[in-house]
Amino acid sequence: MKVAIMGYGTIGSGVAEILEVNRDVVAKRCGEPLELKYVLDLRDFEGDPIADKIVHDYKTIVEDPEVAIVVETMGGVEPAYTFVKAMLEAGKHVTTSNKALVADKGAELIEIARNHKVNFLFEASVGGGIPIIRPLTSCLTGDVIEEITGIVNGTTNYMMSKMTKEGLEFDDVLKDAQAKGYAEKDPTADIEGHDACRKIAILTSLVCGRQVDYEDIPTEGISHITATDIKYANKMGRAIKLLATSKKVGDSYVARVAPFLLSPEHPLYNVHDVFNAIFVHGNMLGDGMFYGSGAGKLPTASAVVGDMVAIAKHIDKNIYLEWEKEKLVLADPNEQVNRFFVRSAASEAEIENIFGQVEFVESGLDDEIGFVTEAMKESDYATKAAALGEVRQMIRLV
Amino acid sequence: MKVAIMGYGTIGSGVAEILEVNRDVVAKRCGEPLELKYVLDLRDFEGDPIADKIVHDYKTIVEDPEVAIVVETMGGVEPAYTFVKAMLEAGKHVTTSNKALVADKGAELIEIARNHKVNFLFEASVGGGIPIIRPLTSCLTGDVIEEITGIVNGTTNYMMSKMTKEGLEFDDVLKDAQAKGYAEKDPTADIEGHDACRKIAILTSLVCGRQVDYEDIPTEGISHITATDIKYANKMGRAIKLLATSKKVGDSYVARVAPFLLSPEHPLYNVHDVFNAIFVHGNMLGDGMFYGSGAGKLPTASAVVGDMVAIAKHIDKNIYLEWEKEKLVLADPNEQVNRFFVRSAASEAEIENIFGQVEFVESGLDDEIGFVTEAMKESDYATKAAALGEVRQMIRLV
Repeated sequence: MKVAIMGYGTIGSGVAEILEVNRDVVAKRCGEPLELKYVLDLRDFEGDPIADKIVHDYKTIVEDPEVAIVVETMGGVEPAYTFVKAMLEAGKHVTTSNKALVADKGAELIEIARNHKVNFLFEASVGGGIPIIRPLTSCLTGDVIEEITGIVNGTTNYMMSKMTKEGLEFDDVLKDAQAKGYAEKDPTADIEGHDACRKIAILTSLVCGRQVDYEDIPTEGISHITATDIKYANKMGRAIKLLATSKKVGDSYVARVAPFLLSPEHPLYNVHDVFNAIFVHGNMLGDGMFYGSGAGKLPTASAVVGDMVAIAKHIDKNIYLEWEKEKLVLADPNEQVNRFFVRSAASEAEIENIFGQVEFVESGLDDEIGFVTEAMKESDYATKAAALGEVRQMIRLV
Repeated sequence: MKVAIMGYGTIGSGVAEILEVNRDVVAKRCGEPLELKYVLDLRDFEGDPIADKIVHDYKTIVEDPEVAIVVETMGGVEPAYTFVKAMLEAGKHVTTSNKALVADKGAELIEIARNHKVNFLFEASVGGGIPIIRPLTSCLTGDVIEEITGIVNGTTNYMMSKMTKEGLEFDDVLKDAQAKGYAEKDPTADIEGHDACRKIAILTSLVCGRQVDYEDIPTEGISHITATDIKYANKMGRAIKLLATSKKVGDSYVARVAPFLLSPEHPLYNVHDVFNAIFVHGNMLGDGMFYGSGAGKLPTASAVVGDMVAIAKHIDKNIYLEWEKEKLVLADPNEQVNRFFVRSAASEAEIENIFGQVEFVESGLDDEIGFVTEAMKESDYATKAAALGEVRQMIRLV
C-alpha cells in the first residue's frame, strides 16, 4: 500500500521515522507493508533518506492512483485544505495532525470523505499521541458525554508547572520553554489559549455531532498569570492550569478556555510538565481520563500512524463519523456558575459589601487582598467586579 | 436492528438500562435504533420491563435471523462459550464483558467471528468502562507496546486504599468491601489476583497478537498484606497496590500480578478506591494512561453498548483483530530484575552479609527489621531470601 506525506516538518518526519522503525509491526497490523512513495515539501532535503521521494507539486500525488493514504502534517488551514480536499476527491484516504484545519473544515472534509467512500481521520489533532478522538467516537458511544475538560496544550502546562515548582515569573519561564523547544518563537497560539480553544471545539463537535465554532468559545490564556498568583495558589493548596472545558447544558454545551485553580482532588491536578490529559464524564461511564504525551514529534506521529493502520483496515469502507456542518449554538457562557478567586486593592469591608460572604486568602502583601467568592453566575461576577473596581486578577476555581 | 442479551445479572441489566435511557443517541450513532428482542436467563423476572422478552433456551436466539447483535454477560467459561460460539456461527455479532471467556477462548472466538464475517468484541472485559481494548487495537497500532501495567481490579484497589487511609487490617477491610457490594461473598478471584491475571493475559495477547495463557503468569494476591506493611509503606512514602504488569523482553513479554510498593512519581500512584487505570508505554508514544470506572453496572455496560455501536457501524465487515491461537512463550519471570522490600527477624549484620548493601526502613518494631534490596534478579532474590530464612514479608518496588 503506497502512502504519501504532505509537509516534512517535525510531525511529518516523525511519521516517516515510525514507518521505518516499526515497519514490521505496522505491516502485520495493516495486512501489508505501508510504502512511502512521496513526500510533499517546498524544500529538497538533500542527503535525507527520503530525498528521492520529495515532490513539490501536490498534483503529483493526486494524480497517482497507486497512493491510497495521504498524511497531512503541514499545519494551517491553507494550502492544507485545498490539498486535503483534492486528495479525498481523488479517492485517497487522509489523516492529519492539523487542529487548525480540523477545527475549521472538519465537518466539510468528513462529508467529502463519506461521499467518496474514503476516511478523513485526525486522531493526532488533539492530545498528540493520546488516543482521545477514537475513544470518543468509537468507544464512549453508549454514553451522553456531559463533560470534557482537558489539559490539551503541553507548552502552557510545562510553563505553569515550572512557575509553580520554581516560583518564576511568566517571562522567564517563557524564555526557558523557548530555549527547550517547547514554545515557538511566536508563542501566541499557545500562551493565549488559541491552540487549546481549537482542540476543545473539535472534541465538542465530536460529542454533539455538530459544528462548534471555536470563535464562539471564550478564551483566556496564561500570559497574565504571575508569580504572585502562584503564591496564592500554594496558600490555597491548589494548582493553576490552563483548561479547555465543555459541559452539557440542556441540548447544548457551554465551553471555555481559561486558567483555573484546581484542587488536589481534581483528576487533572497531577498532570505536570508537557503532559496532556483529557477528563471525560459520561452519563453511564462516570469519570474517565486519558493521559499521555500531548505533543512532540514521535508521540504525535504515533497517532498519525495509528490512523494509517485504521485506514488500511477500512480501505474499502468509510467509518461513519457524526459531525454535521449544522452549527451548534453554544449555551451562554455568562450564565455559567463558577467560584472566582480575586485579588483586589479594595478593603475587606468593600469586598464583603459587594460580594457578600467570601473566603479571604492570606497574601502576605500590604497593598492587596485575595479572596474566593461563593458560586455565582459569570454575569453576576462581572457586575460585582465592575462595582468593586480594584480587581488585579481573577482566576476561576474547579 | 434487533439485539439480545444473554445473562440478566448486574451487567446485563445495565445494558438493557442504557439501551433504554440513551436510546436516542445510540440510535443516532448506529444509524438506526437498537431494539432489545430477547433476554436469555434461567430466571423469569416477572414485573420487570423486560419480562416479556425472557427466553430460557439460547437456541431461540440462534435460530432467529432477525437478531444481529448478541450481548454475553453471563460470566464464566461455560455455558457462555457454547452459546457465544453458536451465535457467531449463526452469523450474529457478539460483545461480551466476560474476562474468563475472553482469556480462555478469545483467539478461537475471534477466528470463528472472522470466518463468519461478524465481530467478536470485548471492550468491557478489561477495565470496565475504560476504553482500553480498542485504543490498543485501533489507536496505538503504530507502536511497539513495551509495557502495560494496570490497576485492573477495583475490589482490591478499594481495599488497599482503605487499608492505607484507615490503618485497618485486611480482614476488616474485606468485610467492609463485602458489605458495600465491592467484594463478592467468595472474594478469592479478586483478592488472590486471578481476575487481574486474566485481564493482563488478555491485554498482552492483544499487543503481541498471540495467545498468552493466564496460567503462565506468576500471580500473587493481597490477602497476605497487613496493617504493618502499610505502616512501612507510609514510612517509605510509597503506596501498596495490586498491579498486573507485562513488559517486552526480546521477542516476548514477561508478566506478573502482585502487590507492589509504588513511588509517588508512578503514574498509577494516584489511582484510588474502586478506580482502575492502565499505564501503557509505546516505543513511539512514550507514556500513556487510561483511567476510569473499572467496574460497576453502568460503566461496564457502557463499554458493552459502545461495542454494540461499533458493531452496528461494521455490520457488514469483520474488524480485523490480531490474536492468533499460537501460544506466546512468556519470558522467564525469574530472570526479571526488581528491587525488593523485605521484613525479617534477622539481624542487620545477617541481612547485609547475605544481601550486601540494603536500605533499612525504620519500623518502630522490636522484633523485626525492614529493608529494601538493590535491584537484582528474582532468582537471586529467592536464593538470598532462602539463605536468610527469617522473611516475614516481601513486596516488590516500582
